[in-house]
Amino acid sequence: MKNEEILNQLNDENIDSMFVYSPENIKYLSGFYPSSFAYLIIDEEPVLYVNSIDKESAEEKSEIETRDVVKLSEVKDLLKGNIAVESSLEFGLVQYLSDDISAIKTSKVFADKRKTKTKEEITNIKNSIGIAENAIMEIDFSSTEKFAAASLEFDMTINGSIKPAFDTIVASGKRSSSPHSETSMNRVETPIVVDWGAKYDYYCSDITRTFINTERQEEIWNIVLEAQKAAINTIAPGVSYADVDNAARDVITEYGYGEYFIHSTGHGFGLDIHEDPVISNKAEGELEKNMVITAEPGIYIPGEFGIRIEDDVLVKNNSEVLTSLDKKLDFLL
Amino acid sequence: MKNEEILNQLNDENIDSMFVYSPENIKYLSGFYPSSFAYLIIDEEPVLYVNSIDKESAEEKSEIETRDVVKLSEVKDLLKGNIAVESSLEFGLVQYLSDDISAIKTSKVFADKRKTKTKEEITNIKNSIGIAENAIMEIDFSSTEKFAAASLEFDMTINGSIKPAFDTIVASGKRSSSPHSETSMNRVETPIVVDWGAKYDYYCSDITRTFINTERQEEIWNIVLEAQKAAINTIAPGVSYADVDNAARDVITEYGYGEYFIHSTGHGFGLDIHEDPVISNKAEGELEKNMVITAEPGIYIPGEFGIRIEDDVLVKNNSEVLTSLDKKLDFLL
Repeated sequence: MKNEEILNQLNDENIDSMFVYSPENIKYLSGFYPSSFAYLIIDEEPVLYVNSIDKESAEEKSEIETRDVVKLSEVKDLLKGNIAVESSLEFGLVQYLSDDISAIKTSKVFADKRKTKTKEEITNIKNSIGIAENAIMEIDFSSTEKFAAASLEFDMTINGSIKPAFDTIVASGKRSSSPHSETSMNRVETPIVVDWGAKYDYYCSDITRTFINTERQEEIWNIVLEAQKAAINTIAPGVSYADVDNAARDVITEYGYGEYFIHSTGHGFGLDIHEDPVISNKAEGELEKNMVITAEPGIYIPGEFGIRIEDDVLVKNNSEVLTSLDKKLDFLL
Repeated sequence: MKNEEILNQLNDENIDSMFVYSPENIKYLSGFYPSSFAYLIIDEEPVLYVNSIDKESAEEKSEIETRDVVKLSEVKDLLKGNIAVESSLEFGLVQYLSDDISAIKTSKVFADKRKTKTKEEITNIKNSIGIAENAIMEIDFSSTEKFAAASLEFDMTINGSIKPAFDTIVASGKRSSSPHSETSMNRVETPIVVDWGAKYDYYCSDITRTFINTERQEEIWNIVLEAQKAAINTIAPGVSYADVDNAARDVITEYGYGEYFIHSTGHGFGLDIHEDPVISNKAEGELEKNMVITAEPGIYIPGEFGIRIEDDVLVKNNSEVLTSLDKKLDFLL
């Protein structure tokens, strides 16, 4: 099914063979995540080439034919006609694939297909969310931000997360006013923005909660929650990305904090933590059934603090919020 | 100093301007590790372009001039003459940099310079090793491999590691017989191969210890240790990579286990966990003063178990083993 769709799109793009190198794309098509040097070559059919170290497990797990890798310098002979690669492929590798590099195209076939999730992928994402949600109950705020992040990551790992989906963010006090604050060795203050996710069978989850304890923080928190609800309420197949983003942005702007909502409302995720689509008012396109996206508005007041609330949503006729965690977890403080 | 050396090499390579995108290379040259979209452009002088989110911290930490990023589609206008990029740069980005992609070169200037470490880099690596060495004392083998890895990573994090230098390996019992074994949810058996490292100020450490408790395991362990000592004893400026690898390989071959030493003896590391050189008998080149490399022979007996011992060595006239951890840590079992 996946195979066919990908072959069809490559055909439409007038591509005869594609070289695929990203482990996430290899996992997507074959079911096998390589631990070492590996690539796919897709022409009539996809074939997975793996290193000897991966041979046994690839033969067990891969849903497509597997063969032994050949050196990159010899891959050229396996590629025919119009050649495509992933946009993310290293330039140094592209140079091995053809004597005429300007003839090599990039294809977005994987990004396009991976935008909407299969049933199996949705199950993996749900499991990944479950691990992340359970783990937050064990977070330990008694010491530094780093300590809190470490306690959360520890609990995700022992419950089956391969690794954190991204570097866990614990940004507290004034440090919460930057959405990219680096988790510090400073003692935890309030409010505390915690942004975390697990990886289950290589599928990510992505959640944020902000822990608050003053009236001023609660005032901002309520605005962010209202904005998030407004965004989530718009999520349905056929709605434009911009409309979802604007739903959240309009609420925050109405309360006078528009200039402090300094990122987009959400993004797709799956095998990678950032996948298409980008839910921004500058993005073109509209939601499709079985996309899985985040809804994560925030307000960041310089020198004061920041608040963000993030949940994960499956786009359907009646869209489904996949995260079931309470928005308010202040009892964990 | 770094600036000058890089400008000189680019000049020798007949390159007029270089676009640099890897965060490790940006950190190497500027001292600042970007959290967001950022790049360097090097022509007469290097200039760091950062996103607004990084502006404040870049201005504080960067040792080179910083400016606001311009869109990739506009970067083309900033590049002059013969253009070079990193070999690792994404093909999709390269396409923005010139209308004639076949004219774009790759330069190994960063890989070349980063092979040997500055005094400051060596201090960071030593700190990273210290964090990793302290943390192993807290490892908890009472449950699963995942639990042991999580306990080790937790302790590194709370002691100042930004994140693990790579996915911590805890491979026990029969699973230790593959050097790429995935840390599992199985209960820990012996022997236990633990391969771990921290990141301090973005600099890695890389250590392996194998925990043993039978005579058969000790027999193999002693051979690996003898091989590692032989390799470490050869390490000095001017010695070929192949000679270091063969020193370890010859010992293991003499004992009849040559076919089970299925990887190379070591590799450089620093900001990345794998940097030049590769210490292999197929590699060409020789050690230089101030390289930092691993020495990590291993024996992997299929269906039985594997043993690896890994330490980190600074190449000098009298080379210095930077790890000071006991080879035998079986008291932690």
